[in-house]
Amino acid sequence: MKSKKKYHILVCNDDGIDAPGIYALVQELKKIGTISVVAPDKQQSAVGHAITMNYPLRVKEFKKDGKFFGYAVQGTPADCVKLATRAILKHQPDLVVSGINHGSNTAISVIYSGTVSAATEGTVLGIPSIAVSLTTYAPPDFRYAAQFARKLASMVLKKGLPAGTLLNVNVPPLKKNEIKGILVTRQGKAVWNDTFDHRRDPNNREYFWLTGGLEDVDTDLEFDEAAVRNQYVSITPIHYDLTDYKMFDAMKKWGVEKLR
Amino acid sequence: MKSKKKYHILVCNDDGIDAPGIYALVQELKKIGTISVVAPDKQQSAVGHAITMNYPLRVKEFKKDGKFFGYAVQGTPADCVKLATRAILKHQPDLVVSGINHGSNTAISVIYSGTVSAATEGTVLGIPSIAVSLTTYAPPDFRYAAQFARKLASMVLKKGLPAGTLLNVNVPPLKKNEIKGILVTRQGKAVWNDTFDHRRDPNNREYFWLTGGLEDVDTDLEFDEAAVRNQYVSITPIHYDLTDYKMFDAMKKWGVEKLR
Repeated sequence: MKSKKKYHILVCNDDGIDAPGIYALVQELKKIGTISVVAPDKQQSAVGHAITMNYPLRVKEFKKDGKFFGYAVQGTPADCVKLATRAILKHQPDLVVSGINHGSNTAISVIYSGTVSAATEGTVLGIPSIAVSLTTYAPPDFRYAAQFARKLASMVLKKGLPAGTLLNVNVPPLKKNEIKGILVTRQGKAVWNDTFDHRRDPNNREYFWLTGGLEDVDTDLEFDEAAVRNQYVSITPIHYDLTDYKMFDAMKKWGVEKLR
Repeated sequence: MKSKKKYHILVCNDDGIDAPGIYALVQELKKIGTISVVAPDKQQSAVGHAITMNYPLRVKEFKKDGKFFGYAVQGTPADCVKLATRAILKHQPDLVVSGINHGSNTAISVIYSGTVSAATEGTVLGIPSIAVSLTTYAPPDFRYAAQFARKLASMVLKKGLPAGTLLNVNVPPLKKNEIKGILVTRQGKAVWNDTFDHRRDPNNREYFWLTGGLEDVDTDLEFDEAAVRNQYVSITPIHYDLTDYKMFDAMKKWGVEKLR
């Protein structure tokens, strides 16, 4: 009976095991289950769904406030979830929660996100999974986002998620009474207006540095980025079947057989 | 008039600019257009859609057979495509082709693939894009795959692709007369049966090494992995809108508003 037994929740992130966002998340999730933390030993932002195949992975115990907090892995967020479930933990967790990321993971950013990739990996391994991000780059206050993550985690532990589906959650950096509501959204269509700073180092060798931000194209609250900009918490159900089914049908008329 | 003017094709990969697969691809694509090569300076397999935001990117000219071959970037496949279009090339290319990867990118591997991520990045930037992989880890013969890539590239240059859609192509390691046909496919559902080797280094420190392969669950030729295993070339139209629309509708009945 799950209702008596405490749940087992695996927590990961991409900001590193020493980030304040994962600490805030663990403090809240502790209230509903036993927590295992397996997270990168350092910042891994924008690593996408990278995994480490050509190098060994090393694991260290990480302490916080003088006590064991979790396992620090010299690898990516996806590595951490694979390693946790296949090598570190004795039992498969009931839920994976990734975050809380310091910065939003909406629209095109979803495909670059290490935070989302940890939750995706949980889903690939058959575990209901949630990614949580706080949509600010200013000094963060994770309290409301952590509370919300705990409530949503409880709901998902009760209801489950369809195989192959995870939840990508973005929380605006607001107090509870400033939040206008909770919306189920679609991934937005906004892309980055990339530019590169072209610079020279102290030895006069040139280098490039990526800059630019999200160009907001979506105003409809149906989209993740528009929702958070308008003070709503955004929950986007996502999956990793990338097939474009519209084109799958359309392309059958292309006559690709003649390319043989 | 595009039919008179030669096309401009950007070529990238994830095996590195000195890999035989990108060389074979360039030799074929040269026949239909002007080629710009911008590729990682070293192996970048399984980097997913990683981009470099916290470090500078450096670029070097790379020579092959004593002649300029392309630009080698100290970064990921996605970095290369961003940097090429935003900083290196004078004009936006007409097409991005990524590959030829040495190893398959079917089923779940699509989400880990650096080869696919270069083509995805081209698509994000509004350029029709194709990823090409040879489905073997044995010593490769890229000739048929390169010829096929050239024919498909010609077709895409003529027909175009819908905004947001790219083509993920997997070619079996066979001669032309052994290929049974060309199929438009869906991303397969096979996942990896991950395991970790638990080892000790010469200093007796423990480490883990990821191992395991794709578990074949799909037998229907509608799926990418089943198609290539049955001697067909597989073309999967994919996109980067990860929204799970079935769950998007279903989740509206969850009553998430009460989580506030």
